[in-house]
Amino acid sequence: MPNPTAAMLVIGDEILSGRTRDSNMHHLANELTRHGIRLMEVRVVADEHADIVAAVNALRARWDHVFTSGGIGPTHDDITADAVAAAFGAPISIREDARAILAAHYDRSGLEFNAARQRMARIPDGAALIENPVSAAPGFIIGNVHVMAGVPNIFQAMVASVLPTLTGGAPLLSQSLQVNRGEGEIAEPFGALAAEFPELSMGSYPFIRNGAHGTNLVIRGTDGAQVDAAMSRLVALFGQG
Amino acid sequence: MPNPTAAMLVIGDEILSGRTRDSNMHHLANELTRHGIRLMEVRVVADEHADIVAAVNALRARWDHVFTSGGIGPTHDDITADAVAAAFGAPISIREDARAILAAHYDRSGLEFNAARQRMARIPDGAALIENPVSAAPGFIIGNVHVMAGVPNIFQAMVASVLPTLTGGAPLLSQSLQVNRGEGEIAEPFGALAAEFPELSMGSYPFIRNGAHGTNLVIRGTDGAQVDAAMSRLVALFGQG
Repeated sequence: MPNPTAAMLVIGDEILSGRTRDSNMHHLANELTRHGIRLMEVRVVADEHADIVAAVNALRARWDHVFTSGGIGPTHDDITADAVAAAFGAPISIREDARAILAAHYDRSGLEFNAARQRMARIPDGAALIENPVSAAPGFIIGNVHVMAGVPNIFQAMVASVLPTLTGGAPLLSQSLQVNRGEGEIAEPFGALAAEFPELSMGSYPFIRNGAHGTNLVIRGTDGAQVDAAMSRLVALFGQG
Repeated sequence: MPNPTAAMLVIGDEILSGRTRDSNMHHLANELTRHGIRLMEVRVVADEHADIVAAVNALRARWDHVFTSGGIGPTHDDITADAVAAAFGAPISIREDARAILAAHYDRSGLEFNAARQRMARIPDGAALIENPVSAAPGFIIGNVHVMAGVPNIFQAMVASVLPTLTGGAPLLSQSLQVNRGEGEIAEPFGALAAEFPELSMGSYPFIRNGAHGTNLVIRGTDGAQVDAAMSRLVALFGQG
């Protein structure tokens, strides 16, 4: 059975302006790989309603799962929930279950549950909530789209609670070999080896360290015996590094 | 005159698998902002011909400039140049000007200019070369698409040589204020202030530090006097942090 696929959508004026460096993509990529789900595409779009709607619809039509990050807070620039609802043509309003979670949280912390904070209880009809153990305001799941916070520790907690509910595939294994040669030297035999193992994916990633060229050769696949066999051949070709 | 827009396309099995953390997006975002070009969208796609072609065509049709990163080396998994050529319907073959640059480079370094390395001289007809001061293999510009290497120091050198040739806009200014309050407390007056300055973009980015909630409030725009005026109002509302 092929591995399930996924895409990520980052709602991201703050990333696109360069003020903040995204870290959620790298975290999600690692977690999905470990869970046997292939991350196939990432998009970062501006905080614009129409752009979010279009990206959600393109990604959810093509991939098994979509994960979004950002734009679900209480301020005027948090427009993700409404955009996702629009993408599904679903009504959205303050929902009682989400309101109750937030009310209890602000009651415990002695903070006013004001109109802005109540905005975070706007959840599309038919969506299931994703727990937020850090600051209570829930994410949600509608169709195959998982809508999560952008703050990294909240994003990570939501990923941790969502992933076990998804059917993963065989874990995506990878092995790598670092060689002290430029890509141009190993390209031909490496390409020939890749052609011998059509079910594996082989990539080469050059680097320059202290002025010397080197390359990381990576073999990826779900069949551990095949990955091992290909790596043995690679080591025989290029030595132990 | 509105600022020119741009998109980035990362060709990126290595990023999507989580093995490598991308750094080129953050670098390009900062450089474009400084140059007065708005980065509006980023896509990361797998090393798949059809996916690269589709993304190049979607992005080049919508935004003023497109910058790609990755997939222009000598190995079998480097398929960006052919995919970009296909997106433009342009023929591609080993071009004499690129071949001469590479031949001179390998001659100087005493390395064999083998078939794999000659592959890096495959440039679409009609494209202009982008200089690579690090490892010679050129990037190229076709239409509004700038095709650059994925290795960060080469990517950065190519960005540095390309940006001065593009017409920028008024620099995108931003000022930020860090406040020791959660987003929910400042959301209402902050939203009202944003509505008073429709030409500026205002965003709020919450964080949690040592268990306490805080928020970075960011004002962006091209009119320095307006940004200053809005920031004065913000300071008056929420104090010096």
